[in-house]
Amino acid sequence: MSTPKAVRADTRFRRLREKGSKDFDLACAIIDAAFVCHVGFVADGLPYVIPMALARDGKSLLLHGSVASRLMKNLASGLPSCVTVTHLDGLVLARSAFNSSMNYRSVMVFGNASPVTDPDEKRRGLELLTDHLLPGRRSDIRESTRKELNATTLLALPIERFSAKVSDGPPEDPAKDRNTPVWAGVVPLTLERGKPESAPDMPDGIPLPDYL
Amino acid sequence: MSTPKAVRADTRFRRLREKGSKDFDLACAIIDAAFVCHVGFVADGLPYVIPMALARDGKSLLLHGSVASRLMKNLASGLPSCVTVTHLDGLVLARSAFNSSMNYRSVMVFGNASPVTDPDEKRRGLELLTDHLLPGRRSDIRESTRKELNATTLLALPIERFSAKVSDGPPEDPAKDRNTPVWAGVVPLTLERGKPESAPDMPDGIPLPDYL
Repeated sequence: MSTPKAVRADTRFRRLREKGSKDFDLACAIIDAAFVCHVGFVADGLPYVIPMALARDGKSLLLHGSVASRLMKNLASGLPSCVTVTHLDGLVLARSAFNSSMNYRSVMVFGNASPVTDPDEKRRGLELLTDHLLPGRRSDIRESTRKELNATTLLALPIERFSAKVSDGPPEDPAKDRNTPVWAGVVPLTLERGKPESAPDMPDGIPLPDYL
Repeated sequence: MSTPKAVRADTRFRRLREKGSKDFDLACAIIDAAFVCHVGFVADGLPYVIPMALARDGKSLLLHGSVASRLMKNLASGLPSCVTVTHLDGLVLARSAFNSSMNYRSVMVFGNASPVTDPDEKRRGLELLTDHLLPGRRSDIRESTRKELNATTLLALPIERFSAKVSDGPPEDPAKDRNTPVWAGVVPLTLERGKPESAPDMPDGIPLPDYL
């Protein structure tokens, strides 16, 4: 890899400055509300963007994957990464295509992830990933075995260099468009849970857990 | 930029081969069902991942943005990009954390985007972006002005080098875990539209359009 690791990502806002924020709590709230992030890294000079599960441990974003995966090996080697989390909150329908947009919450975290190798810390981090996916679930399932822990790479990325953006509210049309007899507004979008589908190989008589 | 543009992205599947697909129709279906993609590129050797709206024009993925944005300038210059589209379809709850996962549909498109400069093609491409967001909407709103078109960069990325992955179905636990008295299955997740919220500056008496 010829990537210069010392260069700092440029997190200044150039466009839509008013939507930008350096607020750590905001960044954490966006991360905590997400099931997936998009992890970007550079290999042989080319960009790759891969969806992954995530969780947060205080001031670190956690990622995990198979020790056998190229992605995890690349990231664990300390490559610069950009982890982006996006929630799409709505379609913003203005009176023109030009002013139509989307409402969203997004955060980009820049930095070099490092593997969590201490066995206790690693177990705790992986538990946070399970808790993040579904609070309460962990009390129902068995503990991970040593073999499973060894087969998993856990990475921590400091939430230090980041950029959060939030776009919300109604469309903003120029005055000349505002009296057009066209409906304008926001169509909210939310990720909703559907009815749980039991695994076909489950023994009879097992009830749906309370956390579902 | 020292990025070697001639290097081809490596789209071979290494992990989870059975989930991978080179199927063009599948890639298109994943793209067509999405409101946002995550666009990755390299600047000064560092990765950036940015959420953007998207649409498809036949064998090209379309992106757009302000001519003033650094992102659009970077991409329009022919930088290698990786555009990833992900739909999260469900939480897959196995009898162990290790075998728990997510169901998803995802496609990564690799390549160099190029600006669409022909005025008619550009207008048509931007119309596709509006149609993609909300079919039917365009018949209600005014045409874009020449000034608006000039303020917008439209980029086309060929859907040629891509990699689609789909993970679906129930959890797959090893035999020894299957008789555990623990609920296992899938919690489906879908992006749902909420009740439209009218813009506060809308004249009275404008009904909600049929397409909403």
